[in-house]
Amino acid sequence: MPSGVVAPIMHRMRAAILAVGSELLGPDRLESNSLYLAQTLRRYGVVLVRKSIVADVVDDIRRELTALLGDADLVLICGGLGPTADDVTREGTALAVGRGLAEDAAQLEVLKGKFARFGMRMADTNLKQAEVIDGARVLPNPRGSAPGQALETDGKSIFLFPGVPRELRGMARSELEPWLEEETEGEAVETRVLRIACVGESTLEERILPAYTEFGREALSVLASAGEIQVRVTATGHSKDRSAALDSMTRRLRQLIGDSVYAEGQGSSLESVVGSLLAGRGKTVVTAESCTGGLIAKRLTAVPGSSGYFLGGVVTYADRMKRQLLEVPAEVLEEHGAVSPEVVSWMASGARRLLGADYALAVSGIAGPGGGTDSKPVGLVYIGLAGDGEPEVQKHQLLGDRKRVRWMASQWSLDLMRRELLRTEGGAEQVPDVAEWRGE
Amino acid sequence: MPSGVVAPIMHRMRAAILAVGSELLGPDRLESNSLYLAQTLRRYGVVLVRKSIVADVVDDIRRELTALLGDADLVLICGGLGPTADDVTREGTALAVGRGLAEDAAQLEVLKGKFARFGMRMADTNLKQAEVIDGARVLPNPRGSAPGQALETDGKSIFLFPGVPRELRGMARSELEPWLEEETEGEAVETRVLRIACVGESTLEERILPAYTEFGREALSVLASAGEIQVRVTATGHSKDRSAALDSMTRRLRQLIGDSVYAEGQGSSLESVVGSLLAGRGKTVVTAESCTGGLIAKRLTAVPGSSGYFLGGVVTYADRMKRQLLEVPAEVLEEHGAVSPEVVSWMASGARRLLGADYALAVSGIAGPGGGTDSKPVGLVYIGLAGDGEPEVQKHQLLGDRKRVRWMASQWSLDLMRRELLRTEGGAEQVPDVAEWRGE
Repeated sequence: MPSGVVAPIMHRMRAAILAVGSELLGPDRLESNSLYLAQTLRRYGVVLVRKSIVADVVDDIRRELTALLGDADLVLICGGLGPTADDVTREGTALAVGRGLAEDAAQLEVLKGKFARFGMRMADTNLKQAEVIDGARVLPNPRGSAPGQALETDGKSIFLFPGVPRELRGMARSELEPWLEEETEGEAVETRVLRIACVGESTLEERILPAYTEFGREALSVLASAGEIQVRVTATGHSKDRSAALDSMTRRLRQLIGDSVYAEGQGSSLESVVGSLLAGRGKTVVTAESCTGGLIAKRLTAVPGSSGYFLGGVVTYADRMKRQLLEVPAEVLEEHGAVSPEVVSWMASGARRLLGADYALAVSGIAGPGGGTDSKPVGLVYIGLAGDGEPEVQKHQLLGDRKRVRWMASQWSLDLMRRELLRTEGGAEQVPDVAEWRGE
Repeated sequence: MPSGVVAPIMHRMRAAILAVGSELLGPDRLESNSLYLAQTLRRYGVVLVRKSIVADVVDDIRRELTALLGDADLVLICGGLGPTADDVTREGTALAVGRGLAEDAAQLEVLKGKFARFGMRMADTNLKQAEVIDGARVLPNPRGSAPGQALETDGKSIFLFPGVPRELRGMARSELEPWLEEETEGEAVETRVLRIACVGESTLEERILPAYTEFGREALSVLASAGEIQVRVTATGHSKDRSAALDSMTRRLRQLIGDSVYAEGQGSSLESVVGSLLAGRGKTVVTAESCTGGLIAKRLTAVPGSSGYFLGGVVTYADRMKRQLLEVPAEVLEEHGAVSPEVVSWMASGARRLLGADYALAVSGIAGPGGGTDSKPVGLVYIGLAGDGEPEVQKHQLLGDRKRVRWMASQWSLDLMRRELLRTEGGAEQVPDVAEWRGE
């Protein structure tokens, strides 16, 4: 087992992020570029000490940047590089570092070339996008018209990025990352994520307990949300060492957690994993939903290409629909009530038989806020899966509001389907790898 | 018509927001308390000049607050008032204003009383929550253990709020608003929102054109997103004048826009408006979905109490399902294809007849990314509504990715249902008022 995988990084560079934009000070929009930049910084072990937002006002930018340079070694500025009158980040930055700002002939040609290529007239206002701070390096922006800039001042570094997320991310990858790579001499922090559906947090913690001592507590973290847990492992060091440590840790975690791991990385959803398993095995599925009201069908069909394995479904909200569309006998409904293992079993087998699929998923429950009783409280949900044999039925008592209960019920249903598909071909070794799903 | 409804507010108070919390500097969490506070500030005409985030470090808080006090008249600080070692906002603030911090006997009693009421032992660490900055006023927190504080220094005002959103919002309402009300002498800015589904932005702009001159350009703003437009009117002044101006402006806008306005305010969704109309008229609905894959059923059933009017639905993804569940003739499918006005009309009338409801909504389209052809490109969607007579069928060419096409198709379908229900009882006067829906 790897040890010391989260060695402290020695450089301890301190960074600050400054977002410029009056719209980011209103009640409607959150600044979110900094999340992407924070992730990049963290990967290289750089400590983010401060984030701030100021309006498109030259003097506000100047003052804030001056303050930040007193505290941080690296300042990343986002936004305000456009062609309009309120794009004044260049001016504010030049003032803060006491330098001039002048039209750059080479940059002007680049800009003219871009407009010409798109057959557009370049407005005079765009000229300001060719202005470069004395001594700054121009950062190309193949995704838009606003170039970035990078400069050094008194041993501190400043990057100017455009505010459009796609342009900023591209520039961070092509300009900031190589710079950080060099400054940090290739040392970085890397994280991998295992995603687990429908396992309780305490159960999971129990299973992965040995890993805390084997990897070191710092290397492992657990993040729980409704119906999903993410287990993250982190390694520090140079590229090859990191990969080897992460490979070994994820292998060990899969061993400990078993087939509850439904995916690695953020690239795939539970419904896309289920979809790929169905497609890979040439199987079809239909749904019969009551309290989830179409959510499971909606999730399955959110995946491009789902028509290859999802035939259709029914939402049987009224009891009459359960009788009419799924042939649930009236006496079963009467004797046990719509929310019962008996009815959900009938729903599943009825849907499979009548709609003609390999599998049928069925759900019946009480999503709330109304409709609960002492014996059948809000959150009580039965799910059923019909295949070749007797339908498999599960009972769950879910916590939370209507939205959460419905979501959790859909998670449990999709995971039941996933596990069934794994079982038919041999179990945990079949857990698909992230690379396979990214192609979706 | 009201004129000068957005008179400039005279006080021009400048505010800054400082959020404290190391977790807010990571790649996973956005600071969002400031949106609520920005809204409150805007309502009183206070200009927010800066937002910043620092870690739970005494000296970082001290430095940032010192900088902010140089620029703003009012500083709102959020977070770091808890009982743990890294809750150091009190210390940082006291240092910045050069005052002492001492245990307050009265506040200690309040704290002890809270713990006693819940039968909990108060840990020693909680003692720090009774520490008050010299000269500060304690702000009660009935929703949690962390009290807030308010102080004046050199003619500037500082508020300390807890970081838990529910507690912060409650304290902003009970403490900040009355203070602002007094400071601004009752002058405030108020906004009302009209929500419109399925009207193009340019069409809408054309309809409301007279309002720009009647109200003044400043009083009116339009915010468009997928399948929805929000028209906002704003008035400044004292309470009664504001209300009168807003009443008159919204009346006029409803006159100009007509029954495309589906709701006023943020309290209701399109599906809840449709639901209330159905319930009010004692009508039932069923759905027959192809490309939306259950999304319309899911949205209708997201509303508590929807079992009163939504009976059920079918998701007929495969053509066989359209034949089997909705009795769409094979020759119609073959001749026109599944995505055609003929098939969607058959789907709607089949669903209504076979499932036995007053209305049936049907959708068939190409959500993409695959499946498009020259004559039937991605984004082509037919929607149908069957009632007493011939089904009404609409054709839409929707733009965007799979998720957006599906969402837009569900918006158009729900709005078609809404308009039909309005028509049956006399039209635009029936547009429900926000107050009615808030009770949902």
